[in-house]
Amino acid sequence: MKQYVYLFKESDGKNKALFGGKGANLAEMTNLGMPVPQGFTITTEACTQYYVDGRKINDEIMAQIEKKLAELEAMTGKKLGDMQNPLLVSVRSGARVSMPGMMDTILNLGLNDEVVEVMARLTNNPRFAYDSYRRFIQMFSDVVMQQEKSKYERILDKVKAEKGVQFDKDLTAEDLKGIVKMFKDLYLKAQGEEFPQDPKVQLIEAVKAVFRSWDNDRANVYRRMHDIPYEWGTAVNVQSMVFGNLGETSGTGVAFSRNPATGENVLYGEYLMNAQGEDVVAGIRTPLPISTLAEQNPEVYKQFADIAKKLEQHNKDMQDMEFTIENGKLYMLQTRNGKRTAKAALKVAVDLVKEGMITEKEAIMMIDPKQLDALLHPQFEAESLKKGVVIAEALPASPGAACGKIAFTAERAKEMAATEKVVLVRLETSPEDIEGMAVSQGVLTARGGMTSHAAVVARGMGTACVAGCSAIKFAEDEKSFTLAGKTYVEGDEISFDGSTGKVYDGLIKTEPAKISGEFATIMEWADKYRALKVRTNADNPKDAKNAFNFGAEGVGLCRTEHMFFEADRIPAVREMIVSSTVEERKKTLEKLLPMQREDFKGIYKAMEGNPVTIRFLDPPLHEFVPHDDADIKALAQEMGLTFERLKSTIADLHEFNPMMGHRGLRLAVTYPEIAEMQTQAVIEAAIAVNKECGYNIVPEIMIPLTCDWKEFKYVRDVVAAKADETIKANGANLTYKIGTMIEIPRAALTADEVAKYAEFFSFGTNDLTQMTYGFSRDDAGKFLDVYYTKKIFESDPFARLDQNGVGKLVEMAARLGKETRPDIKLGICGEHGGDPSSVEFCHKAGLTYVSCSPFRVPIARLAAAQANIKNPR
Amino acid sequence: MKQYVYLFKESDGKNKALFGGKGANLAEMTNLGMPVPQGFTITTEACTQYYVDGRKINDEIMAQIEKKLAELEAMTGKKLGDMQNPLLVSVRSGARVSMPGMMDTILNLGLNDEVVEVMARLTNNPRFAYDSYRRFIQMFSDVVMQQEKSKYERILDKVKAEKGVQFDKDLTAEDLKGIVKMFKDLYLKAQGEEFPQDPKVQLIEAVKAVFRSWDNDRANVYRRMHDIPYEWGTAVNVQSMVFGNLGETSGTGVAFSRNPATGENVLYGEYLMNAQGEDVVAGIRTPLPISTLAEQNPEVYKQFADIAKKLEQHNKDMQDMEFTIENGKLYMLQTRNGKRTAKAALKVAVDLVKEGMITEKEAIMMIDPKQLDALLHPQFEAESLKKGVVIAEALPASPGAACGKIAFTAERAKEMAATEKVVLVRLETSPEDIEGMAVSQGVLTARGGMTSHAAVVARGMGTACVAGCSAIKFAEDEKSFTLAGKTYVEGDEISFDGSTGKVYDGLIKTEPAKISGEFATIMEWADKYRALKVRTNADNPKDAKNAFNFGAEGVGLCRTEHMFFEADRIPAVREMIVSSTVEERKKTLEKLLPMQREDFKGIYKAMEGNPVTIRFLDPPLHEFVPHDDADIKALAQEMGLTFERLKSTIADLHEFNPMMGHRGLRLAVTYPEIAEMQTQAVIEAAIAVNKECGYNIVPEIMIPLTCDWKEFKYVRDVVAAKADETIKANGANLTYKIGTMIEIPRAALTADEVAKYAEFFSFGTNDLTQMTYGFSRDDAGKFLDVYYTKKIFESDPFARLDQNGVGKLVEMAARLGKETRPDIKLGICGEHGGDPSSVEFCHKAGLTYVSCSPFRVPIARLAAAQANIKNPR
Repeated sequence: MKQYVYLFKESDGKNKALFGGKGANLAEMTNLGMPVPQGFTITTEACTQYYVDGRKINDEIMAQIEKKLAELEAMTGKKLGDMQNPLLVSVRSGARVSMPGMMDTILNLGLNDEVVEVMARLTNNPRFAYDSYRRFIQMFSDVVMQQEKSKYERILDKVKAEKGVQFDKDLTAEDLKGIVKMFKDLYLKAQGEEFPQDPKVQLIEAVKAVFRSWDNDRANVYRRMHDIPYEWGTAVNVQSMVFGNLGETSGTGVAFSRNPATGENVLYGEYLMNAQGEDVVAGIRTPLPISTLAEQNPEVYKQFADIAKKLEQHNKDMQDMEFTIENGKLYMLQTRNGKRTAKAALKVAVDLVKEGMITEKEAIMMIDPKQLDALLHPQFEAESLKKGVVIAEALPASPGAACGKIAFTAERAKEMAATEKVVLVRLETSPEDIEGMAVSQGVLTARGGMTSHAAVVARGMGTACVAGCSAIKFAEDEKSFTLAGKTYVEGDEISFDGSTGKVYDGLIKTEPAKISGEFATIMEWADKYRALKVRTNADNPKDAKNAFNFGAEGVGLCRTEHMFFEADRIPAVREMIVSSTVEERKKTLEKLLPMQREDFKGIYKAMEGNPVTIRFLDPPLHEFVPHDDADIKALAQEMGLTFERLKSTIADLHEFNPMMGHRGLRLAVTYPEIAEMQTQAVIEAAIAVNKECGYNIVPEIMIPLTCDWKEFKYVRDVVAAKADETIKANGANLTYKIGTMIEIPRAALTADEVAKYAEFFSFGTNDLTQMTYGFSRDDAGKFLDVYYTKKIFESDPFARLDQNGVGKLVEMAARLGKETRPDIKLGICGEHGGDPSSVEFCHKAGLTYVSCSPFRVPIARLAAAQANIKNPR
Repeated sequence: MKQYVYLFKESDGKNKALFGGKGANLAEMTNLGMPVPQGFTITTEACTQYYVDGRKINDEIMAQIEKKLAELEAMTGKKLGDMQNPLLVSVRSGARVSMPGMMDTILNLGLNDEVVEVMARLTNNPRFAYDSYRRFIQMFSDVVMQQEKSKYERILDKVKAEKGVQFDKDLTAEDLKGIVKMFKDLYLKAQGEEFPQDPKVQLIEAVKAVFRSWDNDRANVYRRMHDIPYEWGTAVNVQSMVFGNLGETSGTGVAFSRNPATGENVLYGEYLMNAQGEDVVAGIRTPLPISTLAEQNPEVYKQFADIAKKLEQHNKDMQDMEFTIENGKLYMLQTRNGKRTAKAALKVAVDLVKEGMITEKEAIMMIDPKQLDALLHPQFEAESLKKGVVIAEALPASPGAACGKIAFTAERAKEMAATEKVVLVRLETSPEDIEGMAVSQGVLTARGGMTSHAAVVARGMGTACVAGCSAIKFAEDEKSFTLAGKTYVEGDEISFDGSTGKVYDGLIKTEPAKISGEFATIMEWADKYRALKVRTNADNPKDAKNAFNFGAEGVGLCRTEHMFFEADRIPAVREMIVSSTVEERKKTLEKLLPMQREDFKGIYKAMEGNPVTIRFLDPPLHEFVPHDDADIKALAQEMGLTFERLKSTIADLHEFNPMMGHRGLRLAVTYPEIAEMQTQAVIEAAIAVNKECGYNIVPEIMIPLTCDWKEFKYVRDVVAAKADETIKANGANLTYKIGTMIEIPRAALTADEVAKYAEFFSFGTNDLTQMTYGFSRDDAGKFLDVYYTKKIFESDPFARLDQNGVGKLVEMAARLGKETRPDIKLGICGEHGGDPSSVEFCHKAGLTYVSCSPFRVPIARLAAAQANIKNPR
């Protein structure tokens, strides 16, 4: 029979898949002889079974829980619901990887109307007993019964106001007793039945609630963002309670073994005396820095610091720990590898190597490449910052500069972010706000500390956050606030820096960051260990320069159409489109030629001689013309055409499915003269820059949308003829390559034939994903939400390369291409090029390089190193 | 060194690939000791080399031509350009398969101003000599120099009018001498140089012209229609001339060993005395039936009849022969397996089996399945025909009834055919008319016999044709004609029957044909030898019944959306679409349920217990609603909605790429209640019909557009639950299957996973082709013409399954599907299901059945038999 429930001391501290991160670490700490309140873990397999059984805990698992509970009772000498020595427990979720704020915790379970009296008597502290009971009712109502949390909060606030006290801890036992009564009445009203008095019923309901919470919306969103499979499930940890709210010699806190914002090697954290865990995290009372504990209770502080060091050495990583002091005695409630800012992650990794604790490769593996994004986000421009007026200073909770228009709710943030830069300003954030936070430039909260929800989640996302800005005074309806004497409403502009905690009035321009210090060290190591080259997608010299500074080793995709859209060229482009003869068309193309040549020269120069892949005109021509009558009229006048003529030309361009229409090399087949003009520009620019700078640029001409070798060969021949002619006409010597995108399934299926003529392939995984799935990205939005809700898709195939389907085509094309042309260059230039899991796939598929947006270049470099460390080539 | 030129007696009569059909047959006849004017064949490889060399005949081939010419001169004792005994030759194309009317022929080559005099002297027949010379100049100008043919015709007509004669043969030697002068002047004017006098120059130019003609537009169109690869090339046959225009004891003719219209076993053909070949084929003079030759010259007739029989037995097929009688002596100019009507093809094949000449399998292999189409085309409805007024009777040149509006040019036929049924009425047709003929219901010509261009091409196409209707009097501008006292202009309606030759005024309704006689025999044999099952695509009982009568063994695709569009349902469908809640939607679906149930009952009954595959709703919902404001307003009023509400609902449904949008099972994921309604209808109808008719129908529910096993499983589970519930509610016993379309590349790539849940696959090769190629059928029309012109595509991938790309996915999916589920049913239901080459592919890929439109069922049955004979399973 399968074992679903284990005491901490029976569990395997290495098996996070089965026990979850929290359960495994509790087992580990128990085995290291640390002061851990004992308990048991219900495995992730029990969770999976719960869902298999149709959201029921089956008899077998139920029996095992009872058995382990009995063993725990025997170990502690306490019994659940006992009138002499009652056992109280916490029930906490613990998935394989930490999902902060996603899962729910219940403390003080086991209390009921009678046990609370026993606890009051045993502790000789009725205030503590009733405080614990009211907390339990509150959490149980919220987490287990999904009742409205705020109604309980309002009762608490009302009593505090009546009693004229500011903090919960200032309420008396009698006050709390009254509150318990009111809570129970509210519970009865909301639930239609009494608050459950049987502690075993409480326990099972709580376990179920944890299981259930694995499937709540926030968890699903978080998993999709972090590629966590739904199948994993969560474990449940049932741990005997120790109490931080027993009085002023009790307390509770969270601390990191190093500073999670900077990586500095000092104990870093916060605690509150006479409090339970949630008080610290929730940010309602402002906690004390952990250093204060060294003065208040040097013995406990030293013991904790020793444990922290020991855990760090044991786990070879910075630790994030929860502890409780019960009547002066220290208990460790959990430890885990700490979440940290990107900056801290780099410093910790480099420091651990310096301290001899880990190797360079281990350091590389420690860093989540996606997190680097935070360091690559905009910083304030120095000039703009000089004029900035600081209007407040608060906790620097997640680094990066942010500016934008104010939104007060996650919903509004989502709406506004569609068209403008938004910052989310909230009293405090809650898990419901996650999506709104994700679309915002940054998050600013009036309450909460460095470990508040806003701070933790923002760091995880790599979004700027300034937290606990108490100077902000919200209006009652939370639709405006005053700060530094000014009232701010939705849409007003504000800026802040999550690295300094400073808040500024108005908009301060931001600029990208640079790579230096530990970041540079890690990137250097990554370059040492990676096999994949990293290029960038850049359509102009500025982006190319940027990417070059971020370490790009070439341009993998330069989209020439973006140049066609520019205001000074679009008239010539439109003239070309309405041309009715080849001669007319050639004449207008001559106008575009010098502009294109200058574009390419700029990009070649920015890349300092590195290879540049230029993709020829791709979008359907109707994208370049207006579609409503007023605009057509205006344009006709401008072009000296009749409205009817222009309207009919535009109507002829209409397509039912433009994605699958007259675009890509199909344009070059119909209008070879366009490809010829582009060829001439590419070649002449290379000749000029080689001459001017002494480079040896080998331009790579990329033909998009191939589906058949014959069409590719046709265009290739046109391009090669023009290129050779141009080289000869310039009396120059130049090597060039002609290759194709592989972005249509048929090109992948027949890659052996295409490779006879194509010198390189670049996988356009955006289009390839669309064609392989048979849905267009523009339209899929309408139904994909339902697919996520119904668990049909767990991740967005446009963000994360679908390895089962699209990946099969990529592997097939890579293999077939190499069979025909063993030295074929293989790259990827879809948006997947910067996604770490997709980079790993590309490494394994034997690609030569990935190409991604400039800001993702460092991410791709690191991901490529990790891929090669995991699967050396 | 490769041999590019062979004397007929050196060639291999079996190697049509190298010598072309004509060359191989000339070799064969030579070897059989038949009277063949000797000559040599320039191989198809020489043609290919000509294109490789940039449309030049290289020195090597040139030398070989000279050498073989010398050998021919030695054999015949005549010399090209000789003043004593000049050799004249014909130059004719000869591709691997016959391409009638596509390639060009030149006769009398070798004549010049001097040789013509020698010929006049030698034959003592100046009239003959000048007639031959004027013909040669005319053909050379047209075929080699591409000058306008009609200018030469006009000179001829003018002289005939001046001289008051009706036929060419009535012109005197002097007349012809004058014509030659005028022709030469015209040539000089048109060409800017004198007509070439050097016979070797004439020969090489003629050979080049034949090579060139392989690449003319008509040849390309014909190849595309008949799947003939461009790479094959054409051979050139240079044959010493014999003359049918030497006087009244000379003549020329074409004949079939059996009747090519009916298959009857009698010599069948036409000839003209004192004429050259073109006169018979061109239809300018009306030739005599071959039976007349038996009276005029019984000896020659008997010799010819014997040769015909011998050739038929040698080639085991009906022969189509050209012959010339020169001064009473018979010469065979060519033979080939004769083109024939579908009816004749069946009769000949069955007769040859009866005669013991071939086996049943050989008989099956003799018939082009595509040709059966002609027999399945409409015939006149008996009732409608009773009222028909016969206005003329002419040659029944290609069977099948036709009716429609009159078009006088191929261009107008193409334009008009876009919106209505068209018949093409012409004085006579020429190769330029091919595309216009292809889109017409039938072709009616005023001139020409059974072997005229119109007749031959129409039979090849399976298009109805009545030829040589001399009662038709065209107006001078050929924009109207009078017949039976009435004037007909473009757009007037006319009907005719290509099997009887009768022409009728007005529109006579047509109806489909039935399978009987030889057709039934061949179908019986086909069924005996095939392994693939044949089903039909039918959306209503009428089509299903039709297909059942044509031998369909089930329905492979019943598209339920066609039922949704019907006038009595579309209101309910639209109500469903604008429903804002699941409850509302369910209510409207209840209205559709009984209608759907009746639909399915009708189809089940038509199929008499055979399996029926019902595909659930596939198109995006916006297809069911109007899109312009006026229609939306009207509908809003009808539905009792505000215009704004309806307009906004419709706007929400808009998609950028509907082909890749919210359709197929994506609708069932979003609105499971639609799939539930359809399931209930499918199941209840099956239960009712099983009860009523004692059948054991196993309905097959087909879920369209799967791209992932999880989405399929989701819908499958919804459908299975509803099906089981329905069966239970009806207290019935019913088996059903749930499967999916494979029409998205990813479904094929992951077919092993999909097959875990799908009991059958049906390849939707229309969509699969679109997604695999990355172009939509609706939009590809705009650029595919250029692809054909530039030889990038040689056939339409929507008509003929692309075996290299799409086929690879089909094979992969079939293999993966069987790995998971060895007994999985595999079918195809795209339009390829009725295309013979695609049927062969499906056979080889191991599919269970093909499904095609009702009219293609017999074609698929025959093609399936041929596939299994070629590659037995």
